[in-house]
Amino acid sequence: MTASPKDLEIGFDVPAEIGASIDDIQTPALIIDLDAFERNVARMRDYAEKMGVKLRAHAKTHKSADIALYLMEKGGAVGICCQKVSEAEALVRGGVTDVLVANEVSDPKKIDRLARLTKLAKVAVCVDDAAVVPTLSEAAGRHGVTLDVLVEIDCGARRCGVEAGAPAVELAKVVAAAPNIAFIGIQAYHGSAQHIYDPADRRAAIDKSTGMARLTADLLKEAGLEPKIVTGAGTGTHPIEAASGLYNEIQPGSYIFMDADYARVRTDEGNGTVGGFEHALFVLTSIMSKPASGRAVCDAGLKAHSIDSGLPSVFDRSDLKFVGASDEHGKIEDPNDALKLNDKLRLVPGHCDPTCNLYDWYVGVRDGRVEVLWPVTARGKVY
Amino acid sequence: MTASPKDLEIGFDVPAEIGASIDDIQTPALIIDLDAFERNVARMRDYAEKMGVKLRAHAKTHKSADIALYLMEKGGAVGICCQKVSEAEALVRGGVTDVLVANEVSDPKKIDRLARLTKLAKVAVCVDDAAVVPTLSEAAGRHGVTLDVLVEIDCGARRCGVEAGAPAVELAKVVAAAPNIAFIGIQAYHGSAQHIYDPADRRAAIDKSTGMARLTADLLKEAGLEPKIVTGAGTGTHPIEAASGLYNEIQPGSYIFMDADYARVRTDEGNGTVGGFEHALFVLTSIMSKPASGRAVCDAGLKAHSIDSGLPSVFDRSDLKFVGASDEHGKIEDPNDALKLNDKLRLVPGHCDPTCNLYDWYVGVRDGRVEVLWPVTARGKVY
Repeated sequence: MTASPKDLEIGFDVPAEIGASIDDIQTPALIIDLDAFERNVARMRDYAEKMGVKLRAHAKTHKSADIALYLMEKGGAVGICCQKVSEAEALVRGGVTDVLVANEVSDPKKIDRLARLTKLAKVAVCVDDAAVVPTLSEAAGRHGVTLDVLVEIDCGARRCGVEAGAPAVELAKVVAAAPNIAFIGIQAYHGSAQHIYDPADRRAAIDKSTGMARLTADLLKEAGLEPKIVTGAGTGTHPIEAASGLYNEIQPGSYIFMDADYARVRTDEGNGTVGGFEHALFVLTSIMSKPASGRAVCDAGLKAHSIDSGLPSVFDRSDLKFVGASDEHGKIEDPNDALKLNDKLRLVPGHCDPTCNLYDWYVGVRDGRVEVLWPVTARGKVY
Repeated sequence: MTASPKDLEIGFDVPAEIGASIDDIQTPALIIDLDAFERNVARMRDYAEKMGVKLRAHAKTHKSADIALYLMEKGGAVGICCQKVSEAEALVRGGVTDVLVANEVSDPKKIDRLARLTKLAKVAVCVDDAAVVPTLSEAAGRHGVTLDVLVEIDCGARRCGVEAGAPAVELAKVVAAAPNIAFIGIQAYHGSAQHIYDPADRRAAIDKSTGMARLTADLLKEAGLEPKIVTGAGTGTHPIEAASGLYNEIQPGSYIFMDADYARVRTDEGNGTVGGFEHALFVLTSIMSKPASGRAVCDAGLKAHSIDSGLPSVFDRSDLKFVGASDEHGKIEDPNDALKLNDKLRLVPGHCDPTCNLYDWYVGVRDGRVEVLWPVTARGKVY
């Protein structure tokens, strides 16, 4: 089969071209409504400034060097958070200069990689176990750096973290006594509370976690180890920590994009979504089959959006309902038979973080046109 | 901050090196037990040969050019199936010469890409709507190729597909009459039946779908359009279609790897897993926190395995239970406190297909060492 070099240019390694109409984007694709995104970024920037807390925007949501740098330059962020060393490596390689790995790193090879990274950027990490302190200390010394360390407390999520109070102080003493690492404060993040829909229940959970953080901070101060940093909070709970007078740094990530599950997290006042953020991230999908009246099939299945927190919703289409996903198909109920073959829809993903991790590219759109293509720089960087 | 060129070599772009011990793999990582994988491949090859059906192994599971070529060279596969045009493009670029896109392609730009691809490999596609036939025909003509076309029938999954029987014949006539495309047969795949655990229920579903395919084939023969190919079946149901005397091609994919959900799909005879295939795909994970007695946290969360079909199981460790996942953490119940920090475990993912799509690399291991690194060639190719 003869083929010219032009024929060998198969494969759209990017799903769209800059300047193209949104109608030409090959679906499914991950699109950002740039206007809504910019409003979300400004809203959190202004809120953190008003509340007098530092904003360390979590990069686990977007995994993009372009977005991280934008958040630091225009979004009021002092730096970023990451969850894994490889995520931090990729973003530092992309130009980020200040990263908190808001997680424990226990493997000696990963600790070595983290210490190497500290030669290239300001790096901090969490600990919840005295057993790793000598390894952190040795690796930092060998690479000629000082690694900043936060003690993480379990403040109710029952995941990682040392017990609040005296056990946290004991661990902080071990950190403070070790060479080449610096105890800088407390990480107190209640992950599962972020998605408690009822505002009273959510507040109750964070009041408890803030209490544990406050107890720990007081005991640390008594021990001569007053925490410089008390950090935590996510998009769902950030107003509570920001108003606590204890937290001086917040780590929300999802606010830039939002998702279908976060839309169910209500404010104290009523049905408004916490923080007032808008949907800015969508999976653009096409109808590829109309097999029978009342139903249609789109091309966005499990490999195009994560359903761990629920199915996606169809943006701005109260007449349509996404009812089921297989690997590469999405079933849509269309009782009015409104949809035609090749119609495009915007799906609001159930959970933005793992959805973004499915894609290689963000397609940023404005006024119906593709304005930017941002790589998902740290996609797949889970190690 | 000064850094030497060696320091700038940050980031393990591959999670392991060839020849390394399995203990040095950076986790979480997607590993293949090569011995078990090779046994699975041989088992299906021999079974298809014994049953006298062609094996067109579905590449949606593995998305790897290396694996696709291995299945065609050593695994008895006549070609591969794909679900999306971009997936087919990536695998053809990787050397695959025969691909059935076992799905509908309706978007004109995608149809153009498919027709271009037909200059580089043998390509077939499915239709369920006469409306796309002129576009397929025109694109094939413009690129100077003949595109093979299967009519897909809905044989019970209520997803894509034209109604079996007379409507399918009408569509086949439209395909046969159009220039530059060739009607070659029927696609009759019952996706949701693959994971029906009870063998009697599963058989009942496939008996129905086989009935619909048989009716369609008979009517097609009467109309002078006897289908050359009757294709379908997956890992869960393939013995039934293979014994039907109707299907002459089967499309299983997951058999090479298996997963936790497929392990629940029982044979007729008892509790054995359908087909007798072994677990060959694992997420290697490390314990990164031991916060309290009876529980541990590993580094494999939602970004490391897909939980759409259930949580992963811990391979060969009946004393441990994986009980919850967040983005980058997995909670493990360890009632005997057997686990230590940095211990490594193999997780059997709940659903292999979307799990593989999370990774850039397969780490193939044998006798405790890394033997191969295979790229997940078509990772993220959902468009």
